[in-house]
Amino acid sequence: MSPPSSERQRTSAPIYELLYYPGIPGRGEFIRLVFEATGTQYTDVANDDPPSGSRSNGYGVLQKALSPDITRDEFGNPPVFAPPMLRIVGAAKDGKPLLIHQTPNILLYLGEKLGVGGSDEAERLWINQLALTALDLNNECHDTHHPVAVMEYYEDQKDEALKKATDFRKNRIPKFFSYFERTLRGNQEGGGEYLISNKLSYADTTLWQVIDGLKFAFPKEMEARKADYPLLFGTFYRAVKERTGIKAYLESDRRLKYSNGVFRHYPELDRQ
Amino acid sequence: MSPPSSERQRTSAPIYELLYYPGIPGRGEFIRLVFEATGTQYTDVANDDPPSGSRSNGYGVLQKALSPDITRDEFGNPPVFAPPMLRIVGAAKDGKPLLIHQTPNILLYLGEKLGVGGSDEAERLWINQLALTALDLNNECHDTHHPVAVMEYYEDQKDEALKKATDFRKNRIPKFFSYFERTLRGNQEGGGEYLISNKLSYADTTLWQVIDGLKFAFPKEMEARKADYPLLFGTFYRAVKERTGIKAYLESDRRLKYSNGVFRHYPELDRQ
Repeated sequence: MSPPSSERQRTSAPIYELLYYPGIPGRGEFIRLVFEATGTQYTDVANDDPPSGSRSNGYGVLQKALSPDITRDEFGNPPVFAPPMLRIVGAAKDGKPLLIHQTPNILLYLGEKLGVGGSDEAERLWINQLALTALDLNNECHDTHHPVAVMEYYEDQKDEALKKATDFRKNRIPKFFSYFERTLRGNQEGGGEYLISNKLSYADTTLWQVIDGLKFAFPKEMEARKADYPLLFGTFYRAVKERTGIKAYLESDRRLKYSNGVFRHYPELDRQ
Repeated sequence: MSPPSSERQRTSAPIYELLYYPGIPGRGEFIRLVFEATGTQYTDVANDDPPSGSRSNGYGVLQKALSPDITRDEFGNPPVFAPPMLRIVGAAKDGKPLLIHQTPNILLYLGEKLGVGGSDEAERLWINQLALTALDLNNECHDTHHPVAVMEYYEDQKDEALKKATDFRKNRIPKFFSYFERTLRGNQEGGGEYLISNKLSYADTTLWQVIDGLKFAFPKEMEARKADYPLLFGTFYRAVKERTGIKAYLESDRRLKYSNGVFRHYPELDRQ
């Protein structure tokens, strides 16, 4: 007897399409790391070469999904505010593509599907709150070079950026890092390698990416502070970086270089 | 035959304790609205009068949970970064209290428990992404009066605040409002009253609170723009406000007045 069609669908691997700006890690990187850490097939639509001519303009797909005229897309998905987006082929009702956005929302979804979202209710909630907090730190880092107007140039808000970056380095970084260090210390079964339990979660990959980005953006500040957070900069940072899927990814050309995204290195904003 | 203990636990109502700063609506208000809309009993620990002397210092409970020495609390919960927090008595393993934080995380939890989080996977994800986006708007509004340093006075960052607020009013508000208006327009079964489906969700209460706060903070800007977003400022805003549980709450003395929290009215930051 052949299984019902819903059963058949479940046995074939879902097709994940990440829709994000090309050429920068940005907020898309939090999603990529989950795929790479779990060895999951995905398409990075705006960065991938067109597969045998079938998709000739990945960035066009992204732009289309962001059109300001959309009230519902052709498959019934509500409009998107901003990238990253994730399209999961066949995951919506009637086998249509499901389209979701908001980084923490995508992480929550993938965490459950790919086994990096916790093994019970408490773990799921704690992992989610840690990822949300790491993403808040990511956003505050972005605001150090764009404290006034996100669509204008850094060069037009340099004075404000210097004030914001100074406060960020002096007050915000220690507040966030202390919290994450204490979380690692309190999770004895994780041995400093995992924020929750003894298993990799999307909170780990997300926090790792923010620390890695901060090391690029504020190298002097990070160097001066790292001794205060030995688990965060030592055991934890290394454990995530050396993990099989992550290690191979970081060495590949799929890992995009930091440039003009969230994490930017302006020496004048770093510790002097 | 008596039910097993786990069954018995499930039949008694959970005890929800909101831990947030006293005296301001702030981010605690998003949580309160969900409780009030669903007629759910809860304790607002730092604002409630001590019940028969059993809790004489609600703010002390909050401060204790935020202690910078905590790596795990006495019940095994990981540390908290910032309020709001939600403590659910008996919800953790072995009947201990579960402690969670991060506004969108608490909303996600309550959305599922209280039936305002969507009826299938797609709805749950869309509601979550809408609430996250409304909370992003909330955070950007906060930054209009604190663009440089969150712990310093507005008076010490007034010049930067004027620039930030101008960009916020001119560019960010239309971007967010257009997105929410299109979402309402695309959801035909909601008739303009609901963002997703034809049922109240925590995305609705969260967006409503942000609009209500913006009307307080930027009354002239909102008045000038409301005709551009007829569903948002008309059908939707009214429907949530007039809903039984919400209406009674807004008329009660439990609804705290806006003052020096996220939403502040500085006439110089409003449209001139």
